[in-house]
Amino acid sequence: MHTALVLTKHPEEYARLIAAAALPDLAVIATADVGDGVARAAHAAILLGDPTRVREALPRMPALKWVQLTWAGVEPMLDPSLRRDYVLTNIRGVFGPLMSEYVFAYLLAHERKLLARHEATRAGRWDTTLPGTLQGKRIGLVGVGSIGAHLATTAKHFGMIVRGYTRASEDCRHVDHYFHGADKAAFAAGLDYLVAVLPNTGGTRGIVDGEMLGALPPHAVVVNAGRGDTLDVVALVDALDGGRLAGAVLDVFSEEPLPPDHVLWRTANVHITCHTSAPSFPGDIVGVFADNYRRFRAGQPLRYVVDFERGY
Amino acid sequence: MHTALVLTKHPEEYARLIAAAALPDLAVIATADVGDGVARAAHAAILLGDPTRVREALPRMPALKWVQLTWAGVEPMLDPSLRRDYVLTNIRGVFGPLMSEYVFAYLLAHERKLLARHEATRAGRWDTTLPGTLQGKRIGLVGVGSIGAHLATTAKHFGMIVRGYTRASEDCRHVDHYFHGADKAAFAAGLDYLVAVLPNTGGTRGIVDGEMLGALPPHAVVVNAGRGDTLDVVALVDALDGGRLAGAVLDVFSEEPLPPDHVLWRTANVHITCHTSAPSFPGDIVGVFADNYRRFRAGQPLRYVVDFERGY
Repeated sequence: MHTALVLTKHPEEYARLIAAAALPDLAVIATADVGDGVARAAHAAILLGDPTRVREALPRMPALKWVQLTWAGVEPMLDPSLRRDYVLTNIRGVFGPLMSEYVFAYLLAHERKLLARHEATRAGRWDTTLPGTLQGKRIGLVGVGSIGAHLATTAKHFGMIVRGYTRASEDCRHVDHYFHGADKAAFAAGLDYLVAVLPNTGGTRGIVDGEMLGALPPHAVVVNAGRGDTLDVVALVDALDGGRLAGAVLDVFSEEPLPPDHVLWRTANVHITCHTSAPSFPGDIVGVFADNYRRFRAGQPLRYVVDFERGY
Repeated sequence: MHTALVLTKHPEEYARLIAAAALPDLAVIATADVGDGVARAAHAAILLGDPTRVREALPRMPALKWVQLTWAGVEPMLDPSLRRDYVLTNIRGVFGPLMSEYVFAYLLAHERKLLARHEATRAGRWDTTLPGTLQGKRIGLVGVGSIGAHLATTAKHFGMIVRGYTRASEDCRHVDHYFHGADKAAFAAGLDYLVAVLPNTGGTRGIVDGEMLGALPPHAVVVNAGRGDTLDVVALVDALDGGRLAGAVLDVFSEEPLPPDHVLWRTANVHITCHTSAPSFPGDIVGVFADNYRRFRAGQPLRYVVDFERGY
C-alpha cells in the first residue's frame, strides 16, 4: 500500500478524480492545508501538489520518494537550500494545447480586429473594415520545448511562417528557421508576432531584451506566456509608448499579482491576462499523476522527470 | 490571344496581380465601371468579377465563354432571367482557412473571456478567473462543404468533438457524427457551439430554426457565417433575450447592411461582424483565376464550376 499526500487549492476535486481513476494500492489524503496534511501523512512516499505547498511540506516528509507537481513551472523547487533526494516530476504535454488556445485567441483577435468590431456593434455601426489573416504571417517562438512545438503546429495549421529562437535545439519539424545566441536581431526582423514561452532558468532572464524588441517591425505584437523575468518590461513599455510596437499580450510578470501602480496597467495596447494562459485543470493533472503512479508502483521510470541542474 | 474583362472594386490591384502572374496570350482590361468595361471589351470571352458587376455586364457580352467570380456566393447569377450559356466558376478552397480564422477567433475569445479580461486590464484589476478550453467541447457544423470541412479540421486541432448537419453527405473524416433532415434536435442537443456555413439555396432557408435553436443548451453560442436567410433571427433573439443561449456571432443578414433600427444591434451578447468573415483577398482570387485560365487555354475542365440547377 502506498500513501499519497495531495496538497492543492482544490483538495475535494483532486480526491474525487483520483478515486475515479481507481489506482491500485493507493491511499490518498487530500487537503489544502500543509500543516494538516503533514500531520496526517508525514510518512507518505508520494506527494502531489502545487509547488508553493510542496515546498513547505518538503522538509517534514522523511519517507518522500516522488513529488508530482501540478504545474509546469518548477522554480520553487530549485532553491539550493531545498533537498533533492527524491524524484521530481512536473506536468508537460497538457499545456501545449492550452497555450495554443491562449496565444491564438489573441493573434486571431488581433487580425480580426475583434475589439474594434465589438465597439462597432455596441455603437450600432456597420463596419466593413477588412480583417487581416494569419496566412503567410511570421511568428517567432522564443523557446521551442513541448509548448513551443505545439504553438508551431498551430501556427502551421493557420499557414504561418515559423521561426524558433532556442539555445541549441533544432528538432521541431514545424519550425521553418532556427536562430540561436547572438542572432537576436535576425530572429526578430520582419516578425509579425513574437511569442515567448521560456521557463525561468538562469539562462533565460532578460532574453527578450531591447535588442530583440528593437529589431521587430512597428506592426509586431509581443506575447509573453512563459515567465515574467524573460522579458525586459522597461524596453517593452518604451517601444509601445514610442509607437515602435503595435501591442503586447502579457500573462506573466516578475511580480505577481502585477502591482496596482505598475506602468503596464496604463500602457496603451497592452493586454494583461493574470497568469491564466495555461491553467492546471485538475482532470489533466490527475491524468498525468495516474499514469506516473502506475509507473512508480511498477518500478518503471516516471514521465516528465525534472533535472534539478538544468532546471527543467 | 484571349481577352479578359476584369470588373471589380479594386481594378488596379487585380491588373497588377494578373500581370505579375504572367499568363500567356492574355490581354486584360480592368475597371470598376461596368459601362466602361463593356464599352472597351464587349467581345471578351473571359469575365472575372464581383457578382453584382458581372450580373450587369452579362447581357452585353455576346462572346462570353467563362465567368470567374471573385466570391464564393453565386446567388446573383442564379436568377432564372439570366443567361446560362457560359461556364461559371466561383472561388472555393481559399475561404475555408479564412473562415476558420474567423470562427475560431470568436470561439477562443469566448473560452478565454477575452472581452472581460480586456475590461479588467482597463480597470487595472488582477483577474485570475479561469479560462475555459475548446478541448472536449462539442461543435456542430450546419453545412459541411469545403468551408465546413476546413472548420472541422481546425476543431479537431483544438481537440473538439465535431458534429455535422448535412443534406446527405458524410464524407468529411473530421466529422465524428452526422445528422440529416428531421434530426435537428438530436444534432443540437448538448452542443457548445453551433456554426452555420450554408450557402443560400432554396433548401437552406430557415434551416437554423426555433427547433434547432431550442435544443441547444443555454451555455451554447451560435455563429452564422454562411448566409443570413439560413437563420431564424426572431427565434435567435427570443432565445438570447430569454437566457436560453449564451451568445451569437453573426456575419451575414437577410438585409445588408443590417438596418440601424434592427433589434440585433440592441440584443445582449451579439457580435455583428458585417460580412467580413471570409473576404476575397485579390491575391487569393487571382491565384484561382490564373490556375483556371491555364486550364481554359489548354481546353481542360475548369475548377470550381457552378451547377446552375443545384446552386453551388
